Amino acid sequence: MIQTSLKESFKKSNYQLAGHGKRNIHVLKEAFQAVDENLESDLYGEGKVIEEFQEKMASILGKEEAVFFPSGTMAQQIALRIWCDEKGIRKVAYHPLSHLEIHEEDGLKEIHKIESILLADKNRVIELEDVLNLREPVSSILLELPQREIGGQLPSFDTLEQISAYCQENGIRLHLDGARLLEVLPYYQKSAAEVCALFDSVYLSFYKGIGGIAGAILAGDKEFIQQSKVWKRRYGGDLIGLYPYILSADYYFDRRAHKMEQYYQSAKELAHLYNSCHGISTLPIDPVSNMFHVHFQQPKDQVELVLAEVHRQTGIGLTSYLKEIDEKSCYFEVSLGDLYADVPNELVQVAFKRLNELMKQHFLPL
Amino acid sequence: MIQTSLKESFKKSNYQLAGHGKRNIHVLKEAFQAVDENLESDLYGEGKVIEEFQEKMASILGKEEAVFFPSGTMAQQIALRIWCDEKGIRKVAYHPLSHLEIHEEDGLKEIHKIESILLADKNRVIELEDVLNLREPVSSILLELPQREIGGQLPSFDTLEQISAYCQENGIRLHLDGARLLEVLPYYQKSAAEVCALFDSVYLSFYKGIGGIAGAILAGDKEFIQQSKVWKRRYGGDLIGLYPYILSADYYFDRRAHKMEQYYQSAKELAHLYNSCHGISTLPIDPVSNMFHVHFQQPKDQVELVLAEVHRQTGIGLTSYLKEIDEKSCYFEVSLGDLYADVPNELVQVAFKRLNELMKQHFLPL
Repeated sequence: MIQTSLKESFKKSNYQLAGHGKRNIHVLKEAFQAVDENLESDLYGEGKVIEEFQEKMASILGKEEAVFFPSGTMAQQIALRIWCDEKGIRKVAYHPLSHLEIHEEDGLKEIHKIESILLADKNRVIELEDVLNLREPVSSILLELPQREIGGQLPSFDTLEQISAYCQENGIRLHLDGARLLEVLPYYQKSAAEVCALFDSVYLSFYKGIGGIAGAILAGDKEFIQQSKVWKRRYGGDLIGLYPYILSADYYFDRRAHKMEQYYQSAKELAHLYNSCHGISTLPIDPVSNMFHVHFQQPKDQVELVLAEVHRQTGIGLTSYLKEIDEKSCYFEVSLGDLYADVPNELVQVAFKRLNELMKQHFLPL
Repeated sequence: MIQTSLKESFKKSNYQLAGHGKRNIHVLKEAFQAVDENLESDLYGEGKVIEEFQEKMASILGKEEAVFFPSGTMAQQIALRIWCDEKGIRKVAYHPLSHLEIHEEDGLKEIHKIESILLADKNRVIELEDVLNLREPVSSILLELPQREIGGQLPSFDTLEQISAYCQENGIRLHLDGARLLEVLPYYQKSAAEVCALFDSVYLSFYKGIGGIAGAILAGDKEFIQQSKVWKRRYGGDLIGLYPYILSADYYFDRRAHKMEQYYQSAKELAHLYNSCHGISTLPIDPVSNMFHVHFQQPKDQVELVLAEVHRQTGIGLTSYLKEIDEKSCYFEVSLGDLYADVPNELVQVAFKRLNELMKQHFLPL
């Protein structure tokens, strides 16, 4: 077996199964191709470009108002800070693997002195029980749909409704980390507004399922959005021009928001293929959105050899990386997008046949 | 006299004297025209696009390292926070009209609990005396070159050297708000690196004299930049892709950084023309950069009529707005850029002749 690095072999593959394609300058050029050169930049949060998009998103999410942020990190910290100020309680509850807890260098704690109460075991989603068992007062609870770090799992919609009702009765604000909100709508069989109605505030990302360049929307009631704009300025997020992100978000939103059902079906199909291979299982087994994780109970360096070999032999790219869990296991994340539909099905079958054979060859006890 | 709104009449004028032109989508399209579609996006602060630009800027500013930020607001608060943490003193000194004091919704105070000590009277620049007279310990001093809110004034370079030496002797960090640093180099007859050598940390903007879309560079030593990257992530400024700002900043930097002498000479010429008109004076009288303010000792609504009339009669656009100081006075800001050189000089002469006549006609005591 030739040793090719996983990243290199993935780059050289003819087809990639996940995503919308490369994150390169073409993404921007395509989005701007049809935009009138004379269209004026937004200006510190004002102007047609930003205001119209904010109104469009507020309407889709069923909220009074919305504001465009350069990042979800900024938007969500601010949302939680506003709810903490409202209640006079600097505590929020969320999942142990929330983006705020593990990917933001403790911004919430360092900037706002907000304490995080971790709900649920890290290997499962938050259930009503976890909320009922909260032993201390919190200003707000953040739910992430789907829970990304565990493969994109979801509570039932009933659970969401129960948590929402409980929070409303008990004066706890409920915030939605909806970075991938659109991606879960096919599973729930709900509109974005129907899901958002259960939450006081909502954040949506434009570079996940939508595949834009960057940027996020925060939505809620008028008073909440007004305050969030003040904080956006404090953070240095009220840029003189956010239009490169806004116009590309709008372009790819229109192009992909209606394709979430397709991505979801692709995810289910692809997960089934992985689960049919020796020594491979997906988390969740049956995806509930366009995403899942692919787990191996074998050492990372050995799995890398197998995957690179599949890339090399079949021209089908499965992943560019593997993440080590411990010495004996590893995984990678898959988010389905536009690309999957363009891969000839017979080549996909060949790739998974080969993957299964190589997995057996390498890891089946003799 | 026909009553045309100032903004409308400015928009309809054939030539505008200040700036580089409209802030529209063309600015982005032009910058990206020659960029290879296959160039990869930066990825959370890493990758060729961001790293090469950061190295280029570090080198030009004569600092060990540099980091690209979406905004100067974010970059500067972070710089001051790092210096406060280093000294264990949550106090910084700056001009009463510093951007941090008047344009950031008190981000420095609200986010970092940093107290600001206001140096000097608001109508003049900070002098060595002001620093010597500091009665309490501060972690750092921020100097803005030029001091924008008073028309872009500068201390002498000797004063800068003396303040820098004093700060170094007394363990006070000196930070440069160099939003318009390049614009003052022709007056000082220094390189950017020569000015920056007097400061521990430096911020530079890309949408002032450079005319990019947005974005900023923060430069300093390795340890400082390392810390600033952690804070950049906390703030939500570590976007998955900042390339729309980086590549346009780079494009316009290369196109305009060497033209600051031209803008400076244009500013001196234009200020002279304003000062030759009845009832008009610029601040400063002799510009020391590409910028100045134009002051009127007359009520805003009356001056508006005069300026709109000049626009209408001559096709020369002077300003789109006036800012009221009090019931009897007002001003607007001028920043010279590419446009001035393209305006036929005879038309400029006609416009100022007309402006002078109208000012006399309206405001000369009978």
